[in-house]
This record gives sequence, C-alpha cells and structure tokens, in this order.
Amino acid sequence: MANKTAPDSSRRSERSRRAILDASLALVGEVGYDKLTIEGIASRAGVGKQTIYRWWPSKAAVLLDAFTAGVDEDYAQGLPDTGDLTADLKSVLHATVDEFNDPAFQAPYRALAVAGANDEELSRTFVSRLIEPGIRVYADRLRAAQESGEVAADADLRVAAEMLLSPFSQRWLMRTGELTYDFVDTLVDLVMRALRPGSESV
Amino acid sequence: MANKTAPDSSRRSERSRRAILDASLALVGEVGYDKLTIEGIASRAGVGKQTIYRWWPSKAAVLLDAFTAGVDEDYAQGLPDTGDLTADLKSVLHATVDEFNDPAFQAPYRALAVAGANDEELSRTFVSRLIEPGIRVYADRLRAAQESGEVAADADLRVAAEMLLSPFSQRWLMRTGELTYDFVDTLVDLVMRALRPGSESV
Repeated sequence: MANKTAPDSSRRSERSRRAILDASLALVGEVGYDKLTIEGIASRAGVGKQTIYRWWPSKAAVLLDAFTAGVDEDYAQGLPDTGDLTADLKSVLHATVDEFNDPAFQAPYRALAVAGANDEELSRTFVSRLIEPGIRVYADRLRAAQESGEVAADADLRVAAEMLLSPFSQRWLMRTGELTYDFVDTLVDLVMRALRPGSESV
Repeated sequence: MANKTAPDSSRRSERSRRAILDASLALVGEVGYDKLTIEGIASRAGVGKQTIYRWWPSKAAVLLDAFTAGVDEDYAQGLPDTGDLTADLKSVLHATVDEFNDPAFQAPYRALAVAGANDEELSRTFVSRLIEPGIRVYADRLRAAQESGEVAADADLRVAAEMLLSPFSQRWLMRTGELTYDFVDTLVDLVMRALRPGSESV
C-alpha cells in the first residue's frame, strides 16, 4: 500500500527523465536545433534546469538520448530473419517509410541530422550512436544471409548496407524524391541482384 | 587600341558578376549560410549592394548561381563514354572523391546542402538546379549502356543512379565514412553486378 501512494524517488526520477526526453523531441521539432535551449526543455518538461544538468552535459546529449531511447531496443533485436532476405528487407523498409513520412518523427530527426551535418563534433556522436548502429543491423542481417548462402560470399556487406540505406536517407534529407513502398521495393530488388550468389561471376 | 584601354561595360559587368559569385563561395565557407549576407558579399566583391540586387533576388540565388556556374558545363558534357561503363564510372567518381576531399570546394557546398536540408523552399531549388541534374547525367550514361547492351534492359536506371551517388553523398554529408578510391571502386563493382545483363534472371 505504502508503495502505491508514497511517490518512490527512483520512479519519480524516471518520470522526470522521460518528460525531459519527450520535451526535447517536441521542442526541437518546433524551434529547430539552433534555438533549442536547456531552459526551454526544462520549462516544457516542468523540471528545473539543474535537474537536466545533473544528467546531461548539453542539449545535444539530451536529444541523442531521446532518439536512442527509441531505437536502442530495435537495434538490440536486429532485423527480422524469416530466412527470406528480400521479404525481410522490404518489410522493415516499409515500416521505415511510414516512420519517415510521419511529421512527428521526422521534424526532430531532421533538426538533429542538419545540426550534425553542420557541426563536426555533434556529427561524430550522431553517427556513432544512431547512424552506425543502423547500418550495422543491416550489415548483420546480410551476414546471416551470406552464411546461409543467400548472399554471394565475396560481397562487401558494409557497402551493400549503404546501398540500401543511403538512397533512402538522401531522398528524405535532401527531399530528392518520394519515400514510397514502391521505391524501397525497387531498391531492395536491385541490391539483391548485386548480392545473389553467382552475381560475382562475369 | 581604344578597346584595350577604355573599360568595356559588358566586360566590366562580367568581371563584377564573377567577383560576386567568387565572394559568395568564399564567404559562405567562412561564416556559414545563416550568417551570409548580401552586404557581406558586396563588400568582399568590392561592389555596391544594389549591383547584387540588380541581378539576384536573394543570397540563395547568388550561391546557387555560383555553384551551377561550376557544374553546368560538366552536366552539359555528360559523363565520358568510352564504351566501358565500369571504367567510366570509376574515373568520374575518383575525380569526385578528389573534389569532395578539397576543403575549398566542400565548405561552401556543405553550407548550401545543410541550408537546403533545413529549408524546404531553398531545398527545392538546390535539388532542381544541382542534385537532380547530377543524378540525371549518371542515369543518361546508364541508359547509353543499356542501349548498347551493357546494362540489363529491365533495370530501373534512376534508382541505380541513386545507388551509385547516395552512399557517396551520405558519407560526405553525415561523415559516416571516408571518401576513397577504394570505396567508390567497391561501390561501382557492386552496382554493376546488379545491372549486368542476366542479373535479372533468378
């Protein structure tokens, strides 16, 4: 009974932490990275500035935690492996199309990506915490397919993962094209032609 | 004799125009797009603000002209066509690696790319004047190879061009990897496996 009524301090901490992360995502989507401040995040989250500084050294650190909180679990799980690489890639990329066409997701992510492109220091953290783990889960799924003989033994899996992901990222970030199921299906089919066993023999 | 000593007004205009374009590239690399001003460009170029406003409506318009002045001629020429697609793609991409590893080129281009990612309006112009024509020259070269039978008849050439160019752009813009000859060679070899006639048959 006591546990239910007396606020437990670690649970309260966790609630503040979650409020701060949510506030940082909402705010950066509204005002952009440059105008995002620790004060603004604190006020939106209903906590004191010092609460934020106790846990994070900078606004970039808050934002990165906010994003990685959303993706760390996905990354830890890895991509689905039904034994059919083409189908697995298409199903994951369809879900990613939906996500990147959702304004609530894409506005803060764009703010962070733009800030990262501009700022070499932030970019290193952005890449090591978000982009690299993303490329790695794809490369890992390709490696499993290579081990099961679905992918040619000599294919460079890191570059293959970039061939799958970079056209998607570029269309989104630079707005060079629509993100549709049709586009990712064409992309996966073409990449699979490059990876299929036998494709290495000229 | 008179022609040599009396400054010819159209030649003087062309000199001012060139000075303005050069000043805009130099300045945006130093201060970034947000802090670039028409006043700053005018002062660096040694012309009055009104001279700039007579020819361009905004700083974005100046910068885009400065960039496209450098690439329009390349785009008009198209990619080399020696009849060996793999060799042609590698040689052009090696030159592009050199260009993007040159700080004098990459600082202003990055400023413009970041501004474009952030600003939907500028992004449309940036894409239509610079990125799209770049993708198109690659797609055209692939089409010539398709017509000569070097590329499978059913391959989607637009997506294939993005598979060649986007991993390069992403490594550069987000600093996710080194731009080396080795990287582009691996990329071209993999894309060619997807495009080779016969790759469509499973």
